[in-house]
Amino acid sequence: MLLVPFIDALSAALPPGRIVLDADVIGAYARDQAAWAPAGTPVALVKPQDAEQVRAVVAACAEHGVPIVPRGAGTGLSGGANAVDGCVLLALDGMDRILEIDPAEQLAVVQPGVINDHLRAAAAGHGLWYPPDPASSPWSTIGGNTATNAGGVCCVKYGVTRDYVLGMKVVTGRGELITLGRRTRKGVAGYDLAGLFVGSEGTLGVITEITVRLLRLPAAPPKTVVGAFDSLVAAGEGVAAVARAGITPSALELVDRYCLRAVDDWKNMGLADLGDVLLLGRIDTGDESEAAALQACFDAAGAVFSTRSTDAEEAEALFAARRLAYPALERLGPVLTEDVCVPRGLVPEMLARIEAHAKAHDVHIANIAHAGDGNLHPLIVVPAGDEEARERAQQAFESILDDAVALGGTVTGEHGVGLLKKRGMRAELGEDVLALHRAIKSALDPAGIFNPGKVI
Amino acid sequence: MLLVPFIDALSAALPPGRIVLDADVIGAYARDQAAWAPAGTPVALVKPQDAEQVRAVVAACAEHGVPIVPRGAGTGLSGGANAVDGCVLLALDGMDRILEIDPAEQLAVVQPGVINDHLRAAAAGHGLWYPPDPASSPWSTIGGNTATNAGGVCCVKYGVTRDYVLGMKVVTGRGELITLGRRTRKGVAGYDLAGLFVGSEGTLGVITEITVRLLRLPAAPPKTVVGAFDSLVAAGEGVAAVARAGITPSALELVDRYCLRAVDDWKNMGLADLGDVLLLGRIDTGDESEAAALQACFDAAGAVFSTRSTDAEEAEALFAARRLAYPALERLGPVLTEDVCVPRGLVPEMLARIEAHAKAHDVHIANIAHAGDGNLHPLIVVPAGDEEARERAQQAFESILDDAVALGGTVTGEHGVGLLKKRGMRAELGEDVLALHRAIKSALDPAGIFNPGKVI
Repeated sequence: MLLVPFIDALSAALPPGRIVLDADVIGAYARDQAAWAPAGTPVALVKPQDAEQVRAVVAACAEHGVPIVPRGAGTGLSGGANAVDGCVLLALDGMDRILEIDPAEQLAVVQPGVINDHLRAAAAGHGLWYPPDPASSPWSTIGGNTATNAGGVCCVKYGVTRDYVLGMKVVTGRGELITLGRRTRKGVAGYDLAGLFVGSEGTLGVITEITVRLLRLPAAPPKTVVGAFDSLVAAGEGVAAVARAGITPSALELVDRYCLRAVDDWKNMGLADLGDVLLLGRIDTGDESEAAALQACFDAAGAVFSTRSTDAEEAEALFAARRLAYPALERLGPVLTEDVCVPRGLVPEMLARIEAHAKAHDVHIANIAHAGDGNLHPLIVVPAGDEEARERAQQAFESILDDAVALGGTVTGEHGVGLLKKRGMRAELGEDVLALHRAIKSALDPAGIFNPGKVI
Repeated sequence: MLLVPFIDALSAALPPGRIVLDADVIGAYARDQAAWAPAGTPVALVKPQDAEQVRAVVAACAEHGVPIVPRGAGTGLSGGANAVDGCVLLALDGMDRILEIDPAEQLAVVQPGVINDHLRAAAAGHGLWYPPDPASSPWSTIGGNTATNAGGVCCVKYGVTRDYVLGMKVVTGRGELITLGRRTRKGVAGYDLAGLFVGSEGTLGVITEITVRLLRLPAAPPKTVVGAFDSLVAAGEGVAAVARAGITPSALELVDRYCLRAVDDWKNMGLADLGDVLLLGRIDTGDESEAAALQACFDAAGAVFSTRSTDAEEAEALFAARRLAYPALERLGPVLTEDVCVPRGLVPEMLARIEAHAKAHDVHIANIAHAGDGNLHPLIVVPAGDEEARERAQQAFESILDDAVALGGTVTGEHGVGLLKKRGMRAELGEDVLALHRAIKSALDPAGIFNPGKVI
């Protein structure tokens, strides 16, 4: 690739001010939040304002064989948005308009750069709700959420991003701006290509608009139910008891002793005094008896302490341990974030294996989990600058992925494959299924320009 | 293709008794319930017992260039399972074992020939529920439901087949038996290929096993709420009022005067005396106030009569009009079944256009609708043997498809494209999107042996 003719072509195709060549500015866009994943050196950062500009960028890149790495807010945790050498970083955060909220049809149409919390706030203005709630929701974009099929806390009851995306516009590898999916509640005309793009991590095309389904805002304020347990296994039993009882909480989170101590050290909240492991459940039906039943499950599973909120403020306060856990751990050193998901009955077994790997590899592993889904986030923390510890952490990371697969689970429940899970995904899917991935990638991106080297 | 060497190869690859060559027997399998769609002449019917036999059939067909038309129970309404000339009909109805129901994980693993109602009954034995409920549920198979992404009455609250399929095994065009998707609640490792196969109507491979998510059985018996209206538009207003009120019924069906009269003529139920159009709503939360609110919506929209059930038996009886409408109409002559879906706010407009097309083309069009979803089933009825009427019906059929697209809807909400909606789908999706379909079809079925001429 000759850089000058390419930049000239790009400049000719876009209005002034859309291309950034300053290395320092570009550098700030060159990686996501996966601190451990490698990032290459881009040739330019492009900030399109509309789909037509995206199309022009894709056309120029296709013609000159320049790779494109699309990105939203860069809050990903797998390196999916990290630059590859010689790429154009296509920053979609400036395309941030909510184009439509239709209360009668209960849907919204947004540009990809709309921030998750902004959509939630706008929907709330109509008594509506966009459920997917990744922890990054104050910063992450609907485009990024769609590209990674983001999950969150309320998935256990309300599902993931995939369950809310009705349709989208994308720019394909053929340089066409096309519409996939629909606005209607149902539709089976042709293959589910909108669904195929959800979770494809920017490897099949660039999403320029998304139509999402909205729900009515839950009428009742949520209630929080807390159970404290003296071991991970006991907490795992609490999760199993909830499943057996047929209760569907709108959140069922686990926070372990490492996280509780880290929060205590930071905020002096005395959480670790409650017990070794907390389960945090949420009931959003307004049914007090359901909250009581959830608490009874925790008690029956051997909770050493349990309580439930009496008002909305207390409900939120009791969830603080969950919200503060990740930033509290980041204070202790670089965090390598896992994202395995196992059959929920195997949560205690997987947690036991994670503890064993921590010992075997001599690393600290804290655990946050969307326990009700079986989606665990072991957080491997090493002292800053300790290269040996970092090496051991990497080994523990891969061992945990293999165990998740061995237990019939997956190497990524909601964060995506990006760069960090490529080996794990190969182990999970096998060569035949990977061959199908490659065939589809070639069919939709024949020139191989979209986010090369990611996922597959 | 030389027939004898192919049949010899097939015979060598399968145990005795799996291949049927008798033309009369084959003929009974050569078409689905789309009476108006053409069907070709197959060379053989094959009834495999397991995935390995499916793999052997696919390998033999690929080697000899013989098309494969997979089929479940043949209850489809778009001709998707109709034979093409020279094909092998691959009848999967004999692979009908429920392999596993896991109450803790709330999932079932089934062979493709398991009948929908059988799965529902087996799940109910564990207090669990498989929601997708196409009208064909007493006969249709989970494999066919998956291949067509079948809907049903409860979609309005619980979604379609796609929302319950976690994973599957398929035999690909490369002759490999592979596993797609997962058993866990969440998972984003690689492209959503399981989702791509849902609704692909047998054009990408043969599904040999399906893993579906189950819900808890609703605890409360359902309540039925009936509203009778004196026009389609008034009933459409009733639907809009329900949406505005934020009520989520577990069914919201519309049955028009033609259907009511046909049921009355057959069963003498006096339904048409209630009003011209019935809305039938169902509430499954056990909340009597919600049933009352639904009734109030009907009344406020101008219902000339309304009532709600007091017990489970009455609730079921009030739904009789919906259940009996289709067989009652079939008594009157061949039925050409539409399946358009429009934004639900445009249901009155679409119904008005359907009425206009009935007049313009001088045909009878009855209407059943999953009104809460905007999914309408105009049923075009013509006298048996009247070729001119059949011609006019065909014109009305295509005009209705075009109007659905013009209103931002789709030509098929839940029945699939098959043969009957190919032109309509082209009009809906456009050439660029069809090109993507063809690219994906070629990638997964390079020899083009799976259900050729269907969908795309």
